[in-house]
Amino acid sequence: MNRLAAAARGEIPADLVIHNARVANIFTQEYEPADIAIYSGKIAGIGQNYSGLVNFDAEGRAVIPGMIDGHIHIEDTMMTPQAFAYTAALHGTSTVMADPHEISNALGMSGLEYMFRASQGLPVDIFYGAPSCVPASDLETPYEELDMTAMKSMFDRKMTQHLGEMMDFPKVIAGDPEAWGKILAAGDVPLTGHAPGVSGKELCAYLSSGIDSDHECTTLDEAREKLSRGMWLMIREGASFLDLKTLLPLVKENPLNAARCMAVSDDITARYLLERGHMDEKMRIMIRDGLNPFTALRMVTLSPAEYFRLHDRGIIAPGKIADFTILDADTMDEAFKVHSVWKRGLQVVRDDDVFAVNDAEHLAPVTRVKVKKVPTVEQIRIKAEDSLMNVIGVKEGTVITKTLQVSPKVSDGYVVPDFENDIAKIVVLERHRDTGRFGVGFVKGLGIMRGAVGSSVAHDAHNFVVAGADDESIITALHGLAEMGGGLVVSEGRELKASFALPIGGLMSYLRPEEVCAELAKMENAAETLGVKIPHPFMVLSFLCLSVIPELRITDLGYVDITKGGVQELFVR
Amino acid sequence: MNRLAAAARGEIPADLVIHNARVANIFTQEYEPADIAIYSGKIAGIGQNYSGLVNFDAEGRAVIPGMIDGHIHIEDTMMTPQAFAYTAALHGTSTVMADPHEISNALGMSGLEYMFRASQGLPVDIFYGAPSCVPASDLETPYEELDMTAMKSMFDRKMTQHLGEMMDFPKVIAGDPEAWGKILAAGDVPLTGHAPGVSGKELCAYLSSGIDSDHECTTLDEAREKLSRGMWLMIREGASFLDLKTLLPLVKENPLNAARCMAVSDDITARYLLERGHMDEKMRIMIRDGLNPFTALRMVTLSPAEYFRLHDRGIIAPGKIADFTILDADTMDEAFKVHSVWKRGLQVVRDDDVFAVNDAEHLAPVTRVKVKKVPTVEQIRIKAEDSLMNVIGVKEGTVITKTLQVSPKVSDGYVVPDFENDIAKIVVLERHRDTGRFGVGFVKGLGIMRGAVGSSVAHDAHNFVVAGADDESIITALHGLAEMGGGLVVSEGRELKASFALPIGGLMSYLRPEEVCAELAKMENAAETLGVKIPHPFMVLSFLCLSVIPELRITDLGYVDITKGGVQELFVR
Repeated sequence: MNRLAAAARGEIPADLVIHNARVANIFTQEYEPADIAIYSGKIAGIGQNYSGLVNFDAEGRAVIPGMIDGHIHIEDTMMTPQAFAYTAALHGTSTVMADPHEISNALGMSGLEYMFRASQGLPVDIFYGAPSCVPASDLETPYEELDMTAMKSMFDRKMTQHLGEMMDFPKVIAGDPEAWGKILAAGDVPLTGHAPGVSGKELCAYLSSGIDSDHECTTLDEAREKLSRGMWLMIREGASFLDLKTLLPLVKENPLNAARCMAVSDDITARYLLERGHMDEKMRIMIRDGLNPFTALRMVTLSPAEYFRLHDRGIIAPGKIADFTILDADTMDEAFKVHSVWKRGLQVVRDDDVFAVNDAEHLAPVTRVKVKKVPTVEQIRIKAEDSLMNVIGVKEGTVITKTLQVSPKVSDGYVVPDFENDIAKIVVLERHRDTGRFGVGFVKGLGIMRGAVGSSVAHDAHNFVVAGADDESIITALHGLAEMGGGLVVSEGRELKASFALPIGGLMSYLRPEEVCAELAKMENAAETLGVKIPHPFMVLSFLCLSVIPELRITDLGYVDITKGGVQELFVR
Repeated sequence: MNRLAAAARGEIPADLVIHNARVANIFTQEYEPADIAIYSGKIAGIGQNYSGLVNFDAEGRAVIPGMIDGHIHIEDTMMTPQAFAYTAALHGTSTVMADPHEISNALGMSGLEYMFRASQGLPVDIFYGAPSCVPASDLETPYEELDMTAMKSMFDRKMTQHLGEMMDFPKVIAGDPEAWGKILAAGDVPLTGHAPGVSGKELCAYLSSGIDSDHECTTLDEAREKLSRGMWLMIREGASFLDLKTLLPLVKENPLNAARCMAVSDDITARYLLERGHMDEKMRIMIRDGLNPFTALRMVTLSPAEYFRLHDRGIIAPGKIADFTILDADTMDEAFKVHSVWKRGLQVVRDDDVFAVNDAEHLAPVTRVKVKKVPTVEQIRIKAEDSLMNVIGVKEGTVITKTLQVSPKVSDGYVVPDFENDIAKIVVLERHRDTGRFGVGFVKGLGIMRGAVGSSVAHDAHNFVVAGADDESIITALHGLAEMGGGLVVSEGRELKASFALPIGGLMSYLRPEEVCAELAKMENAAETLGVKIPHPFMVLSFLCLSVIPELRITDLGYVDITKGGVQELFVR
């Protein structure tokens, strides 16, 4: 006779019983005082007087289902999947839906293969979306293009569970065969979208492809239209994008909308994870904002589980996998502090082994291409012309850039950075194929007074990007990046003042989360000595290459502008 | 470039445009004045100024998504799937989830094969559940047993989409390997349950199997417990079971529960379909009961679509299949009258061809076994004994029976029906294998004063059941059933006074819905001439053989009682 059923009936001891729990029930919106019996990694029963081989006294604390992040790019934490998982798990996360498009730009299919391998056996189930836009556009140069055949292969090999965010909404709307081919190659899976500001008939055209979710809404009107058109809404609340408070009225005005909404991270950093948390932080924000905690809980448990068709999780109920978290209080309050965490019935404790530098290396493909073709100071010089110059205008608090037209500062017949007007030079060097191809431009708003800052984290193709006050510092930074095979650098003149190596695709390190934070702090401090005062300068830098966001951007092809549809000239003709 | 996207953008004409629609949106809970553009059977766009090859003016009427019945036994309408589909479609039904366990008891796998074949190309998509309890218990004799290997085969052949109601809850709770094997054979599909009154740890044990829905709740407390344990609730509202009004408070107190609840039919008759309707009738009941019409609409559209993982339907939105209904008003009001219906973008009109008697016959397996071993009057006589006798007690308005102990009326040394106390004789004859095996008992409460009534609709094994006032009438009725190969009969003495043939497995006819109603009315009138005054006497008769419902029942094995776990004696020892 079946032993799971016997454990549910209480006729054989469970593997584990959580006694004196107050089980948060999103359906009754009540706490149910009960024991939770776990057998073979599953919830067997909820009720009174269960006994287990292992017994744990929750002492009247609230117990919630394991939380689910419906959209995150793990690479942005600069941590390995292993380090990420152990850090997030202890904040109550049990499942994440990750879009590995950063590593897939940097290392192609082998990047995805690494992420998949590195995600086995962790205390967080990581399901990957098939990265649907590698490269993000024709204006970027990734390691290799992942086309519809590659997409099909990812699904056939069961490395991916859903379609990763389809960012190339103009092509989908236009009915482009390659974009539609990728969607069809994914098959009958959740098809996640990315359609900032898309509306009306264009939104209809986007959705006619079958795409059924979005995480880019920033206004209530946009969110309401997308919801009304059948899209599941991922409300983003990460390190840089904060949409929860703006969009929560949608759920408050009709709680039934919680069944179609979820709170997601998109981008978070190691520091955010350590200092603020993960899905627990989203719960705190929602509770503080006045949302019914049970309704909020649905948005980080059952709703994402339903959207992603994970029928085995999202609630604490018999037959579901035993993913749950005990809170350090008897209710879900504003503190929402995690007491202890279980994954498939096993208590999650911090596993220092997975943070070890060398153990994980055999899993990872190191950056494959050694960049040798670094330009010279002479090569990146720009001869002055008798016209205005286009400059990338950075605005704090948004990833949108502006196209500025300014009079170039000229010295010895060359255009040079203009400290007084906060205009630095910016160079992007292709690094995946060592073509030596580079683009040169100017950017306003970084606050660089001397030296240069550089990074191999440069969305989405993740080539080398360096912004600096003089050509020598820029070239030093590029050499520093090339030497390391990727990472972050700060240089001044011929001196490499600080560096943080990111050996996995130039995006991730093997360090512990605290070490990642320390390295990042070190790099930001070094940048500050150059005059950089904006918060998160490396993150700002990393977005200047993202060709699919308006307006002016820079890639190894030079200036690009998605709204104008192509490569742009430096000078205004 | 993709033509669906082009139609959505309005750049090429749609196949069909519904102009001046008021689209009922369950998310915004508003009517949106818009055109609906349909291309290639899918919704392309919703918006203003679409034009189509065909244009239909909705004249400001409300438009709702095609409605979905999450649980129905089509056989109980005595209509073929074709006749059922055309009748239901014109009431706004676009999809039904059907459990074919009646025909599967009567004709085994070939019964299921017939249902599947007969359901292709109809204006209602019929998805079948794999009948999980054939026979309903060891106390019944079906045509053939459908075991876990048969279950696997149904799914492998894609004839079934989900697990049909797992009625044998005691075996599931007990962890019986055959019951669990059937569940596991179904795989990762919705696993529909049937667990009347099951609660506490027994409910946990039932759910630990993965079963995740139920349609048997009759009280709020029962419904609330099942909901809280993660079950999707199918609220039943059919011809005989009326649970909507009792259970709607669950949705009214928290509208979010509408995301886990649906309204279903379970059992409805041809007359109910014709006179009252189908899912439209459920909408009327919910709206009259004061439920927000948009919330009610979710329970017959998106919620069942989500539970059954039909990601292509349930809402009117781009990319979904074009199943929708225009109502005869500008809102969803208490009349909720259907104006016109579209299935995959094609208008549904009554197709008299599908009701034709002979055209469909080639699809159907006629009842295969000719019953020759009909007992004689002498064989069904019961010798009196000096003790009390067990009698099946029928109570109007419930399928539950009672075990009565009465002093038998004796004549010439034999027990005979007792008109004064409304006790008739009842005989069940095995019909699937012509074993000649029969059971004899007595039943109180049918009101039979003379003659006999008989039927091959006798849940769930659907053997011949006859109740009568004298042995000769009973044997005449049995011969009548045997001659027809199944159906309904009324006899008196040697005369077969009325009959209604059900050539498809003894359960369904090829007649049009109006003719089915007329035949049933004729049979009920004939029964009334025998003194039968209870409503729906043939339905009441049909449930007396259902071994899985307490208390006393009769099958070809004789008296049975699931609560006592086996065959019961006629006399009290």
